[in-house]
Amino acid sequence: MSVDALGAARRLTPRLAARAAEHDREGTFPVEDFMDLREAGLFGLMVPAKLGGMGARFAEYAAVATELGRGNGATALVFNMHASVTGALGAVTEELAEALGVPDEALAARDRLLAEAAAGAWYGVAMSERGAGARLSQLSTVYEQVDGGFHIKGAKTFCSGAGHADGYLVAARSVADQSMVSQFLVPADAEGLRVEPTWDSLGMRATASHDLHLDVTVPTDRLLGGVEGLALVVAQLMPHWLVASYAAVYVGVAQAAVDAAVAHVEARNLGELPAVRARIGRADAAVAAARLVVAEAARRVDEEPGEAETNRWVWRAKLLAGTTAAEVAASMLEAAGTSATRRGHPLERLYRDARCGSLHPATSDVCADWLGVAAIGGDPDRDGSAPRW
Amino acid sequence: MSVDALGAARRLTPRLAARAAEHDREGTFPVEDFMDLREAGLFGLMVPAKLGGMGARFAEYAAVATELGRGNGATALVFNMHASVTGALGAVTEELAEALGVPDEALAARDRLLAEAAAGAWYGVAMSERGAGARLSQLSTVYEQVDGGFHIKGAKTFCSGAGHADGYLVAARSVADQSMVSQFLVPADAEGLRVEPTWDSLGMRATASHDLHLDVTVPTDRLLGGVEGLALVVAQLMPHWLVASYAAVYVGVAQAAVDAAVAHVEARNLGELPAVRARIGRADAAVAAARLVVAEAARRVDEEPGEAETNRWVWRAKLLAGTTAAEVAASMLEAAGTSATRRGHPLERLYRDARCGSLHPATSDVCADWLGVAAIGGDPDRDGSAPRW
Amino acid sequence: MSVDALGAARRLTPRLAARAAEHDREGTFPVEDFMDLREAGLFGLMVPAKLGGMGARFAEYAAVATELGRGNGATALVFNMHASVTGALGAVTEELAEALGVPDEALAARDRLLAEAAAGAWYGVAMSERGAGARLSQLSTVYEQVDGGFHIKGAKTFCSGAGHADGYLVAARSVADQSMVSQFLVPADAEGLRVEPTWDSLGMRATASHDLHLDVTVPTDRLLGGVEGLALVVAQLMPHWLVASYAAVYVGVAQAAVDAAVAHVEARNLGELPAVRARIGRADAAVAAARLVVAEAARRVDEEPGEAETNRWVWRAKLLAGTTAAEVAASMLEAAGTSATRRGHPLERLYRDARCGSLHPATSDVCADWLGVAAIGGDPDRDGSAPRW
Amino acid sequence: MSVDALGAARRLTPRLAARAAEHDREGTFPVEDFMDLREAGLFGLMVPAKLGGMGARFAEYAAVATELGRGNGATALVFNMHASVTGALGAVTEELAEALGVPDEALAARDRLLAEAAAGAWYGVAMSERGAGARLSQLSTVYEQVDGGFHIKGAKTFCSGAGHADGYLVAARSVADQSMVSQFLVPADAEGLRVEPTWDSLGMRATASHDLHLDVTVPTDRLLGGVEGLALVVAQLMPHWLVASYAAVYVGVAQAAVDAAVAHVEARNLGELPAVRARIGRADAAVAAARLVVAEAARRVDEEPGEAETNRWVWRAKLLAGTTAAEVAASMLEAAGTSATRRGHPLERLYRDARCGSLHPATSDVCADWLGVAAIGGDPDRDGSAPRW
Repeated sequence: MSVDALGAARRLTPRLAARAAEHDREGTFPVEDFMDLREAGLFGLMVPAKLGGMGARFAEYAAVATELGRGNGATALVFNMHASVTGALGAVTEELAEALGVPDEALAARDRLLAEAAAGAWYGVAMSERGAGARLSQLSTVYEQVDGGFHIKGAKTFCSGAGHADGYLVAARSVADQSMVSQFLVPADAEGLRVEPTWDSLGMRATASHDLHLDVTVPTDRLLGGVEGLALVVAQLMPHWLVASYAAVYVGVAQAAVDAAVAHVEARNLGELPAVRARIGRADAAVAAARLVVAEAARRVDEEPGEAETNRWVWRAKLLAGTTAAEVAASMLEAAGTSATRRGHPLERLYRDARCGSLHPATSDVCADWLGVAAIGGDPDRDGSAPRW
Repeated sequence: MSVDALGAARRLTPRLAARAAEHDREGTFPVEDFMDLREAGLFGLMVPAKLGGMGARFAEYAAVATELGRGNGATALVFNMHASVTGALGAVTEELAEALGVPDEALAARDRLLAEAAAGAWYGVAMSERGAGARLSQLSTVYEQVDGGFHIKGAKTFCSGAGHADGYLVAARSVADQSMVSQFLVPADAEGLRVEPTWDSLGMRATASHDLHLDVTVPTDRLLGGVEGLALVVAQLMPHWLVASYAAVYVGVAQAAVDAAVAHVEARNLGELPAVRARIGRADAAVAAARLVVAEAARRVDEEPGEAETNRWVWRAKLLAGTTAAEVAASMLEAAGTSATRRGHPLERLYRDARCGSLHPATSDVCADWLGVAAIGGDPDRDGSAPRW
Repeated sequence: MSVDALGAARRLTPRLAARAAEHDREGTFPVEDFMDLREAGLFGLMVPAKLGGMGARFAEYAAVATELGRGNGATALVFNMHASVTGALGAVTEELAEALGVPDEALAARDRLLAEAAAGAWYGVAMSERGAGARLSQLSTVYEQVDGGFHIKGAKTFCSGAGHADGYLVAARSVADQSMVSQFLVPADAEGLRVEPTWDSLGMRATASHDLHLDVTVPTDRLLGGVEGLALVVAQLMPHWLVASYAAVYVGVAQAAVDAAVAHVEARNLGELPAVRARIGRADAAVAAARLVVAEAARRVDEEPGEAETNRWVWRAKLLAGTTAAEVAASMLEAAGTSATRRGHPLERLYRDARCGSLHPATSDVCADWLGVAAIGGDPDRDGSAPRW
Repeated sequence: MSVDALGAARRLTPRLAARAAEHDREGTFPVEDFMDLREAGLFGLMVPAKLGGMGARFAEYAAVATELGRGNGATALVFNMHASVTGALGAVTEELAEALGVPDEALAARDRLLAEAAAGAWYGVAMSERGAGARLSQLSTVYEQVDGGFHIKGAKTFCSGAGHADGYLVAARSVADQSMVSQFLVPADAEGLRVEPTWDSLGMRATASHDLHLDVTVPTDRLLGGVEGLALVVAQLMPHWLVASYAAVYVGVAQAAVDAAVAHVEARNLGELPAVRARIGRADAAVAAARLVVAEAARRVDEEPGEAETNRWVWRAKLLAGTTAAEVAASMLEAAGTSATRRGHPLERLYRDARCGSLHPATSDVCADWLGVAAIGGDPDRDGSAPRW
């Protein structure tokens, strides 16, 4: 990896951590964190070098996201969205583009978006809808072709970074053909785009994951891939961005919880209590394991993308990071005791942030089902208890 | 039990529940809840009938506290403190008073306090201190005898209802004899008593558990029991008030979490998801078990007070209520999904409230140790890993 | 309850415990245990007094079964089958008989079977089949009416006490009407009944739960109830015998595991290890809770039979007893250490016995599903993930 | 790694698996497995190439042991003992030898033992004693210098492979200086060495971990290292052999449990049950995580031996492998159902084998304590709740 990216993240972590409590309390977006990320060039993390970016691979993303997550999980979560957009766009090779029938103009448009990211722009994701959740198959936001582009109409929720990003990846269903789901990169200043400030949540409070109302027209080149109907294809080709990019963030959150508990215990001489030691020891091992699983999944994504075994690691990473973060944070709070429940204490926030990992799609329960189907030789993307997307 | 008390609590539960979200969000004290409790006569719950109260026993208290906890855990928790003060005072029989050397004037003073409670006064508890926690053996607040009474000086923390109660039970150590810990009922309007608003916490946010600064002189009759040094004696005689009175509250919180998840799942037709059903099914059983354990402990406290086996049930109740509440609330949030993490959703609050049960003294880890020592035939109040008080 | 029954069980417990290791090792049936049970009159536990029995109710059964389970889980499990047969037969009131259309002769036949039990006979249950498990709806054993009675043909598995019981309750499907499932009490010495010794299992090794091959003709009066097709009706009317009668046994097994761990820890002075104390403390509380849940379910079965809430307690009892036994035994083995894994050590056996509770029908996973459906207002006997019977 | 070693192990796994049930049932030593291991040259796995061995590093050992553990955990566990002896001997570099004051003759003697291993000899470990467990600090077996060598007297327990190994590593305390613990390689045919067949255990039944009675005299060159008192030094220098070599075995056992459950579920079409899928999915992820942690620990042992962080990984590996194996096997049995509890079914054996991992020294509870002390900056080899050795 570009040593610089991880090094840069490490330098930012204390800055993010120092601001985390206030943004959590107020539910404000960590604007300074994102200025820092821009200055460090991290918006170009997943942008190919030839377009001015760092050209990082998924493993590098994972390491950076974990590190940022140690500082502020909310910041890392929003960054993860931007990395997903740029990472997925950047990962469309010429071969793949040809196979999918992506026209040259679309590749050129893609390159412009990536170059802008390398130059300091960042993008949010507007996928989920009230009612449909994150399932692409159940979207009610629609689009239709109009003169000079596409008209998109609908409403999104859980759009992290809303009101702060420079553009949003919006998934919508074709009016003409209900089975067709496409994705558009809608500029933040598009006429008819409105942010409704609805985000006020248990954890990850600084993500500004507000609702987005869309009644906008975008030029043709804002259709990602230049061909309609690619959204589900990409979801299946790059499950790591949909499933496991969260995982790295929550490993960081879990590690932060252990670190905060250790600091608390050292400051108060609670280390003489056997139950406290046992809790910290078990948490230490659990976080170390989750970190390795995320790293292994990421390594395989880079080295053996699309392999069935790679995808299993991706889902394992999501499952273990989510469950580990929640369990570890709950236990660390119990190790530290009542004084750590005061607002402002890092464990107070981490206990809330950490609960969210299992709830992001694919939820832990869906991951367990997916992995079970895969283990018994089924097709985990089709079989099972619940729709995956 | 007086059917009226439980019936009254049941009538209040929806009113408490309706106000819970706002008090949680603002961290304000539920003043109207306490007006309701006063009107319903519940401040006299533990006051003997001859002094104008309901003369309830511990089992009745437990049922009432669970019911109130279903409405608002914070309200129930503050009420629990008042019930502990009045319950412990009311439980000092003439035989016990004689055995402890309590003079008649002290009994008369005790009766006045109880009669005032029956008439609508309520009391908080000022036991914990920063650093010492709730351990009576490590208090730094001190008192000394002065003309016409006692002078008390020090600072308390986690004093639930601070600024709203009519008086506070204050534990302090004698300047003259460090081994002597006594308890005083300090009127809220005593000169030199100051509430410092410090309470701003993960959960149970409406308890107003602020700090209390004391530099006050109280008349002689405010020394509870009229004899110095009774605090630890009473702690050992009535472990249920110190250990298990919380338990009933957290059973109510756990039940509220199951109820909220069921309502959420029904409203969104999530009941078709097997993982959701399994989570709710296991939670339902766990809460039912915890409720029975609390009821059994309470029954024994009333019927076989002070028996070793009774005390074991008291500690089991505290352990199981605390762990069950936290685990159930975490699982119910996972069953309900991301939309339940929005502030204002009952599960969002309950997840935070529920975590606090294991952290109140005696913590779950201390309870496990106590029960382990008891099971292997040791003296659980003396042996073990950590000081109990 | 007849104090005698529980007292008798308590006197037998040490005798059962003393023989348990050998029968477990050899996989032999505890013939002496059953001689003891007969002598104590416990085969008549569920037989009405007017037929010579003890006339116990379900709560008494539960207490006796728990006590026997502390001695030897396998013995208690076989006894549970006999108690189920006699208990269900005894519970058919005249009103119910009339409602079901049970003829007088059938009641008389029923009374004869019960009187024989009171006099010292005991019965096994031949319900499960290889492939179908315990689901009545999928039986392949069939019967048809012949001159003077019924001809039954098929094979059963997991028939506890096979080769030792005096008769077997056999469930079979009508050749004439596939939807009709009936139950017969087949005498052990019936021509064409053959025990195939197949039982050789992880735990509960002394139950002689062998296969039974049937090609027998029984007189008309051996059709239980005298009317065909009552099996599923009875299953729904008395879920406690199908679901929760196991629960009492496993509470006894769990308690035995705690007792054995305590004895081991005391003998080796391991009580000074904090982790050992914590394990025992938590196990103690868990077993106490499971015991109360079983007792509560039993109380309600007696006082409010058939109520929806009663049935929920029955399923809770099965779930909690099964999961608690397995978890407690596994933890107690970890508390005691390697030396407790030697064969002959009670914990070695109890770890294996305890795992079986969750696996008996309804399994823990089925119970969780049933309880989840019930909690969200569905019909738990019909809806859900898996067929119940 | 020598690809051959892992390839050889993979070829042997099905052979080991095919014999596992019988040796488990009978408690017999898998003599043919050890013939296979010898033929495959695996007794020389840890022997330097210049002495005729494979010169494997710890990571290769771990991979081989996991693979063998998938076939038969008991075989892998005995092999682990031999690998520990040869691995520790082989790892004493010339620098270390010099630092420890190891004379040249001792190095030559060491080389002879290793060369014999490469040629097909294998060694057991006789460390534990009844009462003292595996704690070197509490041994009662003693030795004293005599003409031409050392006289050793005492008794050992849990000596895996007793009666089958070609020699035993025996730890003993000096009569002359109680603080000095030394290790000797005692030939299996030494006069005065007697195997007492005591091994008859819950799990890992084929290890022949019998008692060893010693009243033997060995030549001087059988003192390992040629200097007295090195036992504790080596324990601290190579914690991986004492702590984590087991871990690889139990990852194999856990993987075997998942594999067996999958095969069972596929054969019976149980995969349609959501609870079964969820259990397998979560187990799959847990085993994958444990495997990575063991591999990471092993990699660090090879690349950064003796580093504090390396040692933390070693203890994490032991903790996670032990707990994961037990939890996974218990859940897989629950997924598979009652029919998998029949003796002869792999899950029946694996459930018992898997429980043993947490109980081997250092037990899971000791690991948790060690890791907790390390995390809060203490010295985990000295501080904490329980003696480590």
